[in-house]
Amino acid sequence: MDGIESTLRLYAPFLVSYGAVIVPTAAVCFLLAYLLNRRAKSGTFYVERTTDDAQDDDDNSHPSSHEYDDDAEHIPYRADVYPQEEMIARSEAFHMMMQKRRTVRFFTDRPIPRTIIENVLYAAGASPSGANSQPWTYVVVSNPATKAEIRDIIEAEERINYERRMGDAWVKELRILKTSWRKPHLETAPYVIVVLRQLYGVRSDGSRKNYYYTDISVAISVGILLAGLQNVGLVTTTTTPLNAGPALRKLLQRPANERVMLLLPVGYAAEDATVPPLRRKSLDEQFLWV
Amino acid sequence: MDGIESTLRLYAPFLVSYGAVIVPTAAVCFLLAYLLNRRAKSGTFYVERTTDDAQDDDDNSHPSSHEYDDDAEHIPYRADVYPQEEMIARSEAFHMMMQKRRTVRFFTDRPIPRTIIENVLYAAGASPSGANSQPWTYVVVSNPATKAEIRDIIEAEERINYERRMGDAWVKELRILKTSWRKPHLETAPYVIVVLRQLYGVRSDGSRKNYYYTDISVAISVGILLAGLQNVGLVTTTTTPLNAGPALRKLLQRPANERVMLLLPVGYAAEDATVPPLRRKSLDEQFLWV
Repeated sequence: MDGIESTLRLYAPFLVSYGAVIVPTAAVCFLLAYLLNRRAKSGTFYVERTTDDAQDDDDNSHPSSHEYDDDAEHIPYRADVYPQEEMIARSEAFHMMMQKRRTVRFFTDRPIPRTIIENVLYAAGASPSGANSQPWTYVVVSNPATKAEIRDIIEAEERINYERRMGDAWVKELRILKTSWRKPHLETAPYVIVVLRQLYGVRSDGSRKNYYYTDISVAISVGILLAGLQNVGLVTTTTTPLNAGPALRKLLQRPANERVMLLLPVGYAAEDATVPPLRRKSLDEQFLWV
Repeated sequence: MDGIESTLRLYAPFLVSYGAVIVPTAAVCFLLAYLLNRRAKSGTFYVERTTDDAQDDDDNSHPSSHEYDDDAEHIPYRADVYPQEEMIARSEAFHMMMQKRRTVRFFTDRPIPRTIIENVLYAAGASPSGANSQPWTYVVVSNPATKAEIRDIIEAEERINYERRMGDAWVKELRILKTSWRKPHLETAPYVIVVLRQLYGVRSDGSRKNYYYTDISVAISVGILLAGLQNVGLVTTTTTPLNAGPALRKLLQRPANERVMLLLPVGYAAEDATVPPLRRKSLDEQFLWV
């Protein structure tokens, strides 16, 4: 306590003399920092919390629902209903199918009819999204030259990652993952799907339209895509090439409102494909029944 | 230019006298603002950009891959391979099935065997995730008292939203969406699934384990869940009850590292269920072929 008191006594005259300068300067600086930070954040449009609470992902009860025809009547909805034994069988088959899914990085170059990829993508495009914004752009690359350019971009980034990180842990990791900065599978796989997220929409007059929950919306859509790929026996490597995003966006000439979120090479698994053994969390850790 | 010069001439003596106070004050304030902002961000663990670039979603080439047995050998991977005509047929069936999916808010209380929900959830739990973190907790609520409490929490929040927002647009919105702050379907639906995202992991010694891309990972898993529900003929309302999140987390007694991400009532669609007409973006707007 003595220390604090003597400190105060020492600096009080200073604070009295300069307070009129320090306080406004501090206020201006904090305001500036706040504004700069707000601006940086608005670039990502990450909605941490909004008053659009309990916002339905494709039916939105708030004014931003541009995608509805306000005067249209509701239409009846009829679900496909199955007997419960059939529901059980279908749920088991779906579980077994998805349980077999793994992230695979070994592909063959065997061609795949485009209609298969289209159907799976169109299913993903019917995903729910925040205020029905449908904030995804799927760029499907099959052109060998463009695939080679994508590989170059990813390898340049990955090489930096690997070379920066070389050390004791490196050899061990390499052994288990059998991977390196080299990504030949980006050229082997017949398709490379670049998934972009739209940060905001653009109206025909060029003005911006706010989008909400774009991360969640695009990722839900990708979940449906992964189920669709598994359902036809194709594999993919789910990767998040964020540092390579700007270069990929430039290569694909995508507009300023889009950001690369995922990169998915798609093809048949190689005959000799291998995967590392996975440790799944126990069911009790993932699922609770109340 | 004259204006700037005379302004400088006017304030230069002030800046000379007080510069020694203004500059350090500004520096300290910016530093403080930066640190406070960093701290706020680290609370959300939103990975905007990381050096873990091109990080595979379930095979991770970087040191944070705790979930692998470092000494285990790779294992062979065998995909289910179908003739291409069958692949086309399966992709069409999947597309047709998912195209019928809609966010539905009218449920019956018809019971559903738990094994169906389990299978669909277990499929979602086999989703890829950043560094194999599996950062999801699915709390499945069927207990009527807990469902009623969830309804209370959501309605209290929604009522504030609706009452704050009442105005010209309100009647119009209400007409098209046929919705209000009242959410009886949260009690009617036999299951309400609360999807929580783990911001970080907790080791057995209590220390924190960094998780990456938790938003994307959990949402991909939810996409698989939605496909699984559609596959058995059940419906859900995909909602993001973020403002109600803390109250829901408290009700369900979930730990500090978890955040409510989505709330999904699950059941059979009511016989007279309706949905608003949706405007889907054109295929050209969603899918590009390069």
